[in-house]
Amino acid sequence: MEKIQVAIMMGSKNDMPIVEESVKMLESFGIKNEVKVLSAHRTPKETAAYAEALIGRGVKVVICAAGGSAALSGVVAAHTNLPVIGIPLDSMGFNGLDALLSTIQMPPGVPVAGVGIGKPGAKNAALVAVRILALSDPSLTKKLEDFSREQAEKILKG
Amino acid sequence: MEKIQVAIMMGSKNDMPIVEESVKMLESFGIKNEVKVLSAHRTPKETAAYAEALIGRGVKVVICAAGGSAALSGVVAAHTNLPVIGIPLDSMGFNGLDALLSTIQMPPGVPVAGVGIGKPGAKNAALVAVRILALSDPSLTKKLEDFSREQAEKILKG
Amino acid sequence: MEKIQVAIMMGSKNDMPIVEESVKMLESFGIKNEVKVLSAHRTPKETAAYAEALIGRGVKVVICAAGGSAALSGVVAAHTNLPVIGIPLDSMGFNGLDALLSTIQMPPGVPVAGVGIGKPGAKNAALVAVRILALSDPSLTKKLEDFSREQAEKILKG
Amino acid sequence: MEKIQVAIMMGSKNDMPIVEESVKMLESFGIKNEVKVLSAHRTPKETAAYAEALIGRGVKVVICAAGGSAALSGVVAAHTNLPVIGIPLDSMGFNGLDALLSTIQMPPGVPVAGVGIGKPGAKNAALVAVRILALSDPSLTKKLEDFSREQAEKILKG
Amino acid sequence: MEKIQVAIMMGSKNDMPIVEESVKMLESFGIKNEVKVLSAHRTPKETAAYAEALIGRGVKVVICAAGGSAALSGVVAAHTNLPVIGIPLDSMGFNGLDALLSTIQMPPGVPVAGVGIGKPGAKNAALVAVRILALSDPSLTKKLEDFSREQAEKILKG
Amino acid sequence: MEKIQVAIMMGSKNDMPIVEESVKMLESFGIKNEVKVLSAHRTPKETAAYAEALIGRGVKVVICAAGGSAALSGVVAAHTNLPVIGIPLDSMGFNGLDALLSTIQMPPGVPVAGVGIGKPGAKNAALVAVRILALSDPSLTKKLEDFSREQAEKILKG
Amino acid sequence: MEKIQVAIMMGSKNDMPIVEESVKMLESFGIKNEVKVLSAHRTPKETAAYAEALIGRGVKVVICAAGGSAALSGVVAAHTNLPVIGIPLDSMGFNGLDALLSTIQMPPGVPVAGVGIGKPGAKNAALVAVRILALSDPSLTKKLEDFSREQAEKILKG
Amino acid sequence: MEKIQVAIMMGSKNDMPIVEESVKMLESFGIKNEVKVLSAHRTPKETAAYAEALIGRGVKVVICAAGGSAALSGVVAAHTNLPVIGIPLDSMGFNGLDALLSTIQMPPGVPVAGVGIGKPGAKNAALVAVRILALSDPSLTKKLEDFSREQAEKILKG
Repeated sequence: MEKIQVAIMMGSKNDMPIVEESVKMLESFGIKNEVKVLSAHRTPKETAAYAEALIGRGVKVVICAAGGSAALSGVVAAHTNLPVIGIPLDSMGFNGLDALLSTIQMPPGVPVAGVGIGKPGAKNAALVAVRILALSDPSLTKKLEDFSREQAEKILKG
Repeated sequence: MEKIQVAIMMGSKNDMPIVEESVKMLESFGIKNEVKVLSAHRTPKETAAYAEALIGRGVKVVICAAGGSAALSGVVAAHTNLPVIGIPLDSMGFNGLDALLSTIQMPPGVPVAGVGIGKPGAKNAALVAVRILALSDPSLTKKLEDFSREQAEKILKG
Repeated sequence: MEKIQVAIMMGSKNDMPIVEESVKMLESFGIKNEVKVLSAHRTPKETAAYAEALIGRGVKVVICAAGGSAALSGVVAAHTNLPVIGIPLDSMGFNGLDALLSTIQMPPGVPVAGVGIGKPGAKNAALVAVRILALSDPSLTKKLEDFSREQAEKILKG
Repeated sequence: MEKIQVAIMMGSKNDMPIVEESVKMLESFGIKNEVKVLSAHRTPKETAAYAEALIGRGVKVVICAAGGSAALSGVVAAHTNLPVIGIPLDSMGFNGLDALLSTIQMPPGVPVAGVGIGKPGAKNAALVAVRILALSDPSLTKKLEDFSREQAEKILKG
Repeated sequence: MEKIQVAIMMGSKNDMPIVEESVKMLESFGIKNEVKVLSAHRTPKETAAYAEALIGRGVKVVICAAGGSAALSGVVAAHTNLPVIGIPLDSMGFNGLDALLSTIQMPPGVPVAGVGIGKPGAKNAALVAVRILALSDPSLTKKLEDFSREQAEKILKG
Repeated sequence: MEKIQVAIMMGSKNDMPIVEESVKMLESFGIKNEVKVLSAHRTPKETAAYAEALIGRGVKVVICAAGGSAALSGVVAAHTNLPVIGIPLDSMGFNGLDALLSTIQMPPGVPVAGVGIGKPGAKNAALVAVRILALSDPSLTKKLEDFSREQAEKILKG
Repeated sequence: MEKIQVAIMMGSKNDMPIVEESVKMLESFGIKNEVKVLSAHRTPKETAAYAEALIGRGVKVVICAAGGSAALSGVVAAHTNLPVIGIPLDSMGFNGLDALLSTIQMPPGVPVAGVGIGKPGAKNAALVAVRILALSDPSLTKKLEDFSREQAEKILKG
Repeated sequence: MEKIQVAIMMGSKNDMPIVEESVKMLESFGIKNEVKVLSAHRTPKETAAYAEALIGRGVKVVICAAGGSAALSGVVAAHTNLPVIGIPLDSMGFNGLDALLSTIQMPPGVPVAGVGIGKPGAKNAALVAVRILALSDPSLTKKLEDFSREQAEKILKG
């Protein structure tokens, strides 16, 4: 049985329509992933425990989606040394500026790699993960090249 | 020996010049307090443990000062049921808007009570704590009345 | 007859759908409260008189909801020494940034404890009040623990 | 003895360097004015009383300068029916955006006329007052014409 | 025949639903007014000519509503010495922040008195005008007192 | 005698250190230019007259620098059909966001071409002018190619 | 056969409803144009090649519309010495502030001339192009005068 | 000879004081890196060529630092399938908000992983790279654990 390579966490199950974009993108690259609803604020212990177990389970990359005071990605980055990708969500007002700044303005020493707001960000979070995984999986590099070429062709066809 | 009534946490010892304003204000009301440097991101376990122990130690109110992706107050509020007051700091850019939004835009269920940015906020964080403590300590109510009157007189004298 | 413990003020009756979230949360904890429509700008005398009478009536915490140039919480904090919690509302434009900054950027000496914008803020304002009241009411501490556990369980069940 | 025509209020005596610009401009037009330090938050009763007495004293226009959660102009407008001009000050962070929004986003029914931030705003607040007073004093209209012409000439001379 | 006391200018006839609020408010005080569509950018000569003629026609106050790069109020203030009140409109994006800053950040020497964004601002622009006109018309002062009292009563009745 | 090809206008002579960057850039391309201090708000008639005369004088491009409620470029665009390039200046607060939005958010029908804030913007305003002039002057195209190549070489040399 | 004078590029075919405003405006002036979907990020080579070929094809002005991290106009300006006009689009959140700042805050040396957000910007981008083309085509100057006069008449008719 | 594992690109050599933080962090982990000054706008061809050659040279991660309209990270991500980490710089105004939004708001399909503004961001960019490299280098995982522990100890020692 193939191992989970990417864990996707979100602060609320209401965030699924956004996170779904990450899942679909990962699956289009054949990358096994799991989605977990856990909140930095409402389930802090389970969030910490889940993050701490990731390396042991063989997971390679974590994607965290959260809105408002989006502490999830930072808290996860504090509990694992895996690369953590944060998707800021526009769910609490201010067009998501609260989530963007909460996600990205991390103190030096605890890194979070942020992507854009909402669905485009969710797609790109998955692609960052694919690029990372491709470093040790040449078949993914090939698929990324195909993806880029197909994407370009779609635009060029108008 | 009198118990600590207010715990003041800050994410970095560099924040002390701001936090000092809370300490001085609390001391002017004769309220015993302690200052602790703990980071939601860099010392997550110790932060959680410290927050969880507060009620047992008889502490009544927690004040948390943090800048940037200011997760400290939210994480503390997730680990204790004490009233948590957050002071956003302007230490990572954007005039502290990052810290303000991170502090105040908490998800429903995990409350943080935020005050203004920097030193005025630090003074007011202490005063919120005094007002809370005064609910069960009439001598503090008297002192708050004196404080307000003296403050007004200072302005009226020009 | 049980006394009112939390007074909730709002600048306009149009704010009721938001404030209702505070009421429901307080009632779920069995906390007696009253809602009062009073405006810092349109009924300044009545607002001042109402705020000044609160301590005498045995009220413990005031919650103020206002939008735009949200002076209500600050004005109430100027007329009482009770803890004042401000809920900024998005009712006059700029996604409520006007209300957020008006509520939270208080001058040193007159403290307001702000929560997030709109409904999540209204729920959390009530929870800040509950945490304050729990300091002298152990049954509320127990209920807060239940609340946090149930909230976590709901998330963990997905 | 000539009556005070313009009352200038400010929330803190630290605001005097800005407010001085209003005073100098008014005096260049020969308009008798007084400066008063009063805070909407720290001296609420005196602020209300001062505002309520203005019409009886023959004052025609009120200028209010305040920073942060700049409630002064709004509170004064709630206690007098004179024209109230608000100068937002950059004294509490966010480049004065807090004061600008607090000053200008008044609820319908209680009008404040805002000017720009800081010293340019303070000069213009005085000029708004002069334009208002000129409606019933033709000598001021003549002086305003001179002012505009001299101002233009200064620019044209390079 | 009674003279026009307040001229209301707007940059586009699409702004009428907002400006209508000023008209209704002025009419409720029995103040004769006229509405004129003129653009600082698209009809610059007519705008200048209209503004320059206002004093000669006996007009006392000008209200200007404009969105985006809201130059109308500033340009009018450059062509008349009457008090000019600017209503920023949210018609070109950024929630009207463009219009707010364009209206209010005038250079020293050419004053514009700004009010809040949109309909509340339009109502208040009219009330600023009424307060100015009341300085030389005691019947308006009486009506303003009635207005404030009725407004307060409406809130107090809930 | 060679004609002026680019007119540079600024709202205040204090803006010269920024505008100097445009002048130096134009001169490095051998383009004859003139700098004129004129204010949309303080010298409206002279500004209009100057703008209206530009085409007749053979000027090809106008560059306007202004801060705050930066009406200059828009007003000039209303009085000439030449291409108008606006440089927003950070001179009145808000980091120049006021000038940026005032410059760029023009109503449809009166176009202003905006560049970035301050000195980089001033350099680029000149380069936009050079690119426009190069359309009918092949020697300028050659110089632009040299400029780009030298600029690249400077970076490549490190 | 007449040559293309204005090339319009957009990052995604979804941007066509905005770009259509540029096309219609150009056509109302009888200016031959072409619309091309090319992305700075997804088709970088084709974008560079297209931009580099423009001068050789006799194109005079390029208009680029893009949202989010709107790199298109800057990248095109890096590959041609034609005047490049950037239209920021509100397509990725933050009301288009991301696109506005990405479009306009170019480094010195690579100029982009930006217009306002969305449809008004698209119309004005075309008008900037017409003003540039009119420098060497007197019939366009005549049409611009007609356009301005008709536009003014439409406003004056109310 | 050991291969370069991380390439660090910056738009201008003035950015070196920030980028130096990335270099020092990488070196503290013993990771071989190179710093290259290349601009998306001023050296577009060399930037593309450099990015395209990275995979062939065995580089694993690219870090790009840029201010203003920060196109560098996006353009590099368009020319390589390596993970690209963007550091937004505060070098062109608006406190770096321009660079933050330009860096992070990428269209779906071309991913950039952004970190916070300035020096803290530069440190974290290096740490994101280390975490990525650690996926295939257990010695780095060990060093990351040491780094986190030492960082925590430093805080705990106060």
